[in-house]
Amino acid sequence: MRQVLVIGIGAGDPDHVTVQAVKAMATVDAFLVLDKGEEKSDLTDLRAEVLRRHVSHPYRVIRGRDPERARVGGGDAYPDAVQDWRSRRADETARMLGEVGETEVGAFLVWGDPSLFDSTLAILTEVAERGELAFEVTVVAGISSVSALCAQHRIPLNRVGRPVQITTGRRLAEGWPEGVDDLVVMLDAHGAYAGVQDAEVHWGAYVGTADEVLVSGRLPAVADEIRAAHEAGRARKGWIMDTYVLRRR
Amino acid sequence: MRQVLVIGIGAGDPDHVTVQAVKAMATVDAFLVLDKGEEKSDLTDLRAEVLRRHVSHPYRVIRGRDPERARVGGGDAYPDAVQDWRSRRADETARMLGEVGETEVGAFLVWGDPSLFDSTLAILTEVAERGELAFEVTVVAGISSVSALCAQHRIPLNRVGRPVQITTGRRLAEGWPEGVDDLVVMLDAHGAYAGVQDAEVHWGAYVGTADEVLVSGRLPAVADEIRAAHEAGRARKGWIMDTYVLRRR
Repeated sequence: MRQVLVIGIGAGDPDHVTVQAVKAMATVDAFLVLDKGEEKSDLTDLRAEVLRRHVSHPYRVIRGRDPERARVGGGDAYPDAVQDWRSRRADETARMLGEVGETEVGAFLVWGDPSLFDSTLAILTEVAERGELAFEVTVVAGISSVSALCAQHRIPLNRVGRPVQITTGRRLAEGWPEGVDDLVVMLDAHGAYAGVQDAEVHWGAYVGTADEVLVSGRLPAVADEIRAAHEAGRARKGWIMDTYVLRRR
Repeated sequence: MRQVLVIGIGAGDPDHVTVQAVKAMATVDAFLVLDKGEEKSDLTDLRAEVLRRHVSHPYRVIRGRDPERARVGGGDAYPDAVQDWRSRRADETARMLGEVGETEVGAFLVWGDPSLFDSTLAILTEVAERGELAFEVTVVAGISSVSALCAQHRIPLNRVGRPVQITTGRRLAEGWPEGVDDLVVMLDAHGAYAGVQDAEVHWGAYVGTADEVLVSGRLPAVADEIRAAHEAGRARKGWIMDTYVLRRR
């Protein structure tokens, strides 16, 4: 049966690639790329660099056009908008998978870890549920942006015996969640950290790359510094991927 | 200044090692090992295998005796007991670091990712705060047991725009936490999953190794199957490291 690999290539540093990923890439007939447009060219560059360093056999590249994702204001519309976008991505993904031969191996190279804030597995599930194309999925874990952030700040993610919650900027803006004092915040386009009182913050953008910026300190004191770094990064590169850990006493 | 590397070597599979870890290991003068006794010999075996495969230069090994950790019943005693144990580990770690020359590089090889449910960073912070020994810490992220579990089950950790909480079996036994429908449960010695009603579970033990066992299904229906797998594993190997994802509708 057609094999589909979903390979995590780490959070920005080409050296995040695992030996397992290198071995998996050596089996690939066709790399599948959903083209996200110019602003995501760093991901394209990372993929190219990983392939250049670690893949020496001939392979095909099957490209697809990533559908535009509607920008929504927030609230309940968000999951629906993502669901519609995923459905259109599933159409395009099914078309690309159709170009992988039935005895071949196709692979997606995914930023970070395929399990965390990446939609590839959900899209493949959607394609599989349509029942029009037979394939078997294998996932190769990667260094997540959360692990990379903690490594650069040299901090543990959790405290002893204590829970940690991974959440979004959108949700943090609605208030600090119940029952946890340690948070990881992803996808924060609107600076939800600015509303946080009296917590330690470890923030990072472009972690593991040459553009890496780190800020640590106490909120609200360092909120302005984070905002300035966020805006400077986005202005310079056209996109930003930032993440932070919040720790409350 | 004396350099101390804390290198994540992944969740059991020697191929989880990253290129970054391999490069870091090539700079190491002395590997520091806190001997945990027989029951953790798989970790010792993994370390030895990683060194055999990826380190070709001569190096020293500095061994320490990991202090016994008091077994406590639960509740509030737990953080104190861990704190006392960490303090004694800090004494032993400081002694070992004293054997690393001031211009040398020492390294700890850590199971999984150094940021997640590993005490090495906390111990080094404690040693540093004593101010008796100067050293600089660098952390190399590793594949966490959470990423490895999700990869083997081919599932995302989080759902779209939704939070996920990483917690302990001890806390889950006190009740499903507020505000989240997706959980990762670590360190569950007492089968807290048995008390969960109507959730999807993805459980794994010894993930990424030859002993790997996976169970997926709905709770409470598969609770007995998980318990049997847990007990069989512990009986056969003398220890168990299992983790699971819970997903509520």
